[in-house]
Amino acid sequence: MALIVQKYGGTSVGTTERIENVAEKIIKSKEAGNDVVVVVSAMSGETNRLIDLANAIHPRPPARELDMLVSTGEQVTIALLTMALEKRGYPARCYTGAQVKILTDSAHSKARIQEIDAKVVSEDLKQGRVVVVAGFQGVDPSGAITTLGRGGSDTTAVALAAALKADECQIYTDVDGVYTTDPRVVPKARRLDRITFEEMLEMASLGSKILQIRAVEFAGKYHVPLRVLSSFQDGPGTLITFEDEDMEEPLISGIAFNRDEAKLTLLNAPDKPGIAGSILGPISAANIEVDMIVQNVSRSGATDFTFTVHRNEYERAKDILDGVAKELGGEVFGDTKIVKLSLVGVGMRSHAGVASTMFEALAGEGINIQMISTSEIKISVVIDEKYLELGVRALHSAFGLDDDDATVRVEGKEA
Amino acid sequence: MALIVQKYGGTSVGTTERIENVAEKIIKSKEAGNDVVVVVSAMSGETNRLIDLANAIHPRPPARELDMLVSTGEQVTIALLTMALEKRGYPARCYTGAQVKILTDSAHSKARIQEIDAKVVSEDLKQGRVVVVAGFQGVDPSGAITTLGRGGSDTTAVALAAALKADECQIYTDVDGVYTTDPRVVPKARRLDRITFEEMLEMASLGSKILQIRAVEFAGKYHVPLRVLSSFQDGPGTLITFEDEDMEEPLISGIAFNRDEAKLTLLNAPDKPGIAGSILGPISAANIEVDMIVQNVSRSGATDFTFTVHRNEYERAKDILDGVAKELGGEVFGDTKIVKLSLVGVGMRSHAGVASTMFEALAGEGINIQMISTSEIKISVVIDEKYLELGVRALHSAFGLDDDDATVRVEGKEA
Repeated sequence: MALIVQKYGGTSVGTTERIENVAEKIIKSKEAGNDVVVVVSAMSGETNRLIDLANAIHPRPPARELDMLVSTGEQVTIALLTMALEKRGYPARCYTGAQVKILTDSAHSKARIQEIDAKVVSEDLKQGRVVVVAGFQGVDPSGAITTLGRGGSDTTAVALAAALKADECQIYTDVDGVYTTDPRVVPKARRLDRITFEEMLEMASLGSKILQIRAVEFAGKYHVPLRVLSSFQDGPGTLITFEDEDMEEPLISGIAFNRDEAKLTLLNAPDKPGIAGSILGPISAANIEVDMIVQNVSRSGATDFTFTVHRNEYERAKDILDGVAKELGGEVFGDTKIVKLSLVGVGMRSHAGVASTMFEALAGEGINIQMISTSEIKISVVIDEKYLELGVRALHSAFGLDDDDATVRVEGKEA
Repeated sequence: MALIVQKYGGTSVGTTERIENVAEKIIKSKEAGNDVVVVVSAMSGETNRLIDLANAIHPRPPARELDMLVSTGEQVTIALLTMALEKRGYPARCYTGAQVKILTDSAHSKARIQEIDAKVVSEDLKQGRVVVVAGFQGVDPSGAITTLGRGGSDTTAVALAAALKADECQIYTDVDGVYTTDPRVVPKARRLDRITFEEMLEMASLGSKILQIRAVEFAGKYHVPLRVLSSFQDGPGTLITFEDEDMEEPLISGIAFNRDEAKLTLLNAPDKPGIAGSILGPISAANIEVDMIVQNVSRSGATDFTFTVHRNEYERAKDILDGVAKELGGEVFGDTKIVKLSLVGVGMRSHAGVASTMFEALAGEGINIQMISTSEIKISVVIDEKYLELGVRALHSAFGLDDDDATVRVEGKEA
């Protein structure tokens, strides 16, 4: 008998019919002999409805009261789901974040979990009950309701799984697992049976929105096996797991991309110690986050310095960089029509030649590489935005990720 | 400086505009030098919306989960109202029933308040804050959310006022006070400046829906001065107060009526000890509430026994009475087209002749009286339903309750 924590997001509980469907899924796991704890989000649309109410009253709603307001969303779902379970004859209990004592700091709207006292949950499980917990919310030491920020229900589920020492934390979502890349861009994208935490973290940080990055970090830190599955169809999903020496690691697990970045370059700045700090200091002082940074040492005492920021911050960052250029010298160039492609895979640690295969595949399609940066399990390049689909497909084939079944399936229509 | 507890019902906070309006009213009281604690209901329609969700999932939603669900309604209102106050520069804090520790028993959906630990509230008031509390809800000793039943927000307000030893508890509603009778029936009905608790209790039990009867009882028990006012217009409202020996008591304070009753009579039952119990025993065993009971001793060893029940229970009660008649003998008659009129007034204690004035006024209009029952501060009669308006108007004039200003106001159109 295993202890499973399941988490269902807003789309999965978006209507009363879907809530009944979730009840059936929970019962299936229960009937398979598991103890089940369930974490749910607000019904889709509900959080936005509440925020609209707040905005009608206050242009910038105070965070403390906003948490009081939006935390009602999950409270509605836990009550309805528990009713659906009880109607089917399965005893169940539901709790708000405050009631299971998900203790957080007092940073309203982006609180961090500090401690969970899951005694009530364990007691209910012992009584044979399904336990339904409101995601996304907690309580601070003064007793005020806090929220963990958007997507925080994943974190609630993982934290509860850690506190209860659960055997698996299952995140039910509207996709049936983690794919080698976005199937909307590459129809041959393949579902991964497993992926390591490190790879998942890189994929998440690159904008693959399946799991909240804090939830993955949390799961990695507390060694909680995490599985991504679909609420709407059966299947094994993708298990996010720890690296195993016996595991045969694929070279590359996935290809992620991010269209939200813009590029800024300071050309021909004087090449002297501290120049990077002089350029990025004012940017970071303005609270603008920088992603990639590349500096090429030049021949002639000058240097070219390039970095990327979120597109929403581009104008602000460019104004600041123009100011820096006036002081230091150099010319500013900017480009918002770029995209970042990343290969991710723990396998690349032990294999040389990944980078050259990547560059050759892109060159083969006539795609020019504007920036390169590498980490231990990731290689990222910046290219012209218009080559996004072409580039991802070329890399997907070059690294043998194509799902041949998918090919047959698609081509089968003509056969 | 006074401490005022204000309560605003669902209609008063039905939209974000109305919530802003309530914020203005609170600020007016605050600016007048008062400390203000506010109790609010769910926005009108919200509780029904939530109950509809529950009914879509469960034919008879379990009470524990229903309380978890519907308690979100007030939680939304307290957050929005607090935002409206803060936008206007008035520091405020909001709390759920559980957070202010409104401790109740565990009778979900009809819990009773046992204790209030209003320490947080007092602390906030000391800091100059307005305190906004969710009405209608509490928490049981195990930490489960409970609700006090429909209209329970009035009770929350009164209980908080008692716990805080407030100077006044103000119930804001959609009428501007307690009237001598229903102004829709008698245009000359007059707003009362004050009414005693006993009178208010009689009025409330007779179907005047302004205040929840438990709230009035609670206020009477804990000596909390209660005032009914309008959320939508300014005015002094009606103060519900304790009898004062110096107070000049009007003979009659108001005329209430109730159209929801039906009458059942057992004619010519054998007149022997225990007959009343034989008739009413089976009725009360079927959980049917009986209001008026009248028995006339007869000349010939037979008795006529009449009682009233809620119209919804009429058919059930008649079936039972038919069964009783078969055993005891006697004939059953029933009538659903009746109405009960009641005169209420503490003044009638010390004045004879109220009853005869009443009967004469009704006789003067040719209205036949079917039943009479009296209590210390109330006389009720049952008459044919079709005479309701005529009877109330006749009594209103006979006891000098007509508002002459209203007359002038109405007739002034022609002048």
